[in-house]
Amino acid sequence: MEIQIAVAKVNKYAVSESGDTLEVVERPNGGLSVVLADGQTSGRGAKAISMMVVRKVISLLAEGVRDGAAARAASDALFTEKGGKVSSTLNIASLDMLTKSIVLTRNNPAPILVAHEANVKALEGESMPIGTQRNSRPLIDELPIESGLTVVFYSDGLVHAGDRRGTPMNARSLLSELLQGREESAQLIADTLLDKAVKLDDGRPVDDCSVVVLKVLPLIGDNVRRLNVRLPINLG
Amino acid sequence: MEIQIAVAKVNKYAVSESGDTLEVVERPNGGLSVVLADGQTSGRGAKAISMMVVRKVISLLAEGVRDGAAARAASDALFTEKGGKVSSTLNIASLDMLTKSIVLTRNNPAPILVAHEANVKALEGESMPIGTQRNSRPLIDELPIESGLTVVFYSDGLVHAGDRRGTPMNARSLLSELLQGREESAQLIADTLLDKAVKLDDGRPVDDCSVVVLKVLPLIGDNVRRLNVRLPINLG
Repeated sequence: MEIQIAVAKVNKYAVSESGDTLEVVERPNGGLSVVLADGQTSGRGAKAISMMVVRKVISLLAEGVRDGAAARAASDALFTEKGGKVSSTLNIASLDMLTKSIVLTRNNPAPILVAHEANVKALEGESMPIGTQRNSRPLIDELPIESGLTVVFYSDGLVHAGDRRGTPMNARSLLSELLQGREESAQLIADTLLDKAVKLDDGRPVDDCSVVVLKVLPLIGDNVRRLNVRLPINLG
Repeated sequence: MEIQIAVAKVNKYAVSESGDTLEVVERPNGGLSVVLADGQTSGRGAKAISMMVVRKVISLLAEGVRDGAAARAASDALFTEKGGKVSSTLNIASLDMLTKSIVLTRNNPAPILVAHEANVKALEGESMPIGTQRNSRPLIDELPIESGLTVVFYSDGLVHAGDRRGTPMNARSLLSELLQGREESAQLIADTLLDKAVKLDDGRPVDDCSVVVLKVLPLIGDNVRRLNVRLPINLG
């Protein structure tokens, strides 16, 4: 089989630093984890928070700590560091080769969409951001790795896209459309969702916006592992 | 401008775990670092070494430690942990937004190729792997970020590809060919170099093989940051 992970990310309009931090790291027993955090507010302060959270999580995952424990630890660390006054959302999506499953851990009110072929559902349960309470608990879902599975999650920039002009984003129906018929790549799905969100904000995103798409498909082609990053920069 | 970073990676033939570890991480002041380590021998033992080295480096970079100091620290840590008996190569390529430069740090006898348009050179100086001596020193080169720049580095699987049958790999001339005329993506360059190496090993790589390509080009298209991972898996 083949796993595709794609991320598309824009900053809030006219803000140079994104409050969202995202890293993809190898797990000690094979597999990968994608970690996304969105710190409260935007700009430099939010970036410092989300980086701190993501760093904490990836350093624990690297030691073999389970995802849920890593999320709890990140929450406690943020609570201690900021006295419970600053929150951050956190999503961890792991391809766990030991359990042969995809583990989805979240402290984020934004939904996680899971599709088997074109049948899209939002995972059940409500979860809260980390950092503001002592006994923060992530919601954890475990899905078997199987061909045809697509998982999508995002930061709240996507949730609230279009709110300003009263034309809210419907990520679920757009994803369902994209999964009908043609086999679209994870990157195309991420790009299309983000593009829609930016358009609903009239091209000027109201908040930092990150979309992550994870897709399982039959192995087509070679055995090469690939990673590709595209980063627009402004040296001005 | 736009930065493209592409990685293509295969394992040694019939070995499920690669001794090469590669991570791409955000730097605290913006920009990215790519960290590649290749642990001595192959398989599980080599993986543990290269993971340890890469983890050490990325955790220091996350704290704002300079690349050269992070490489020295990783060397000392490996030396201490393994009593000087185990070596690892290490490459760090950073897009440093503070100095507006690309910083190339290496403890690796394998060359780093740097091209301005189609004019390919290997960086000068010899560097040794880390872990076997107390006073390990990385070689550091700093290049201004400018359009038309391509940087390529790789693990020794690529250096020694084809040695078995006496038809050695010439990465420099292949890169030079690829850069003539058409504007190829970083991913296409990485894929082509790796593909050539695998073919020279008759489709059965003699060693783990990782190729990293970093390219600076004029900004074409949108302001979206993208990350894409493709991972072939075998659930056996």
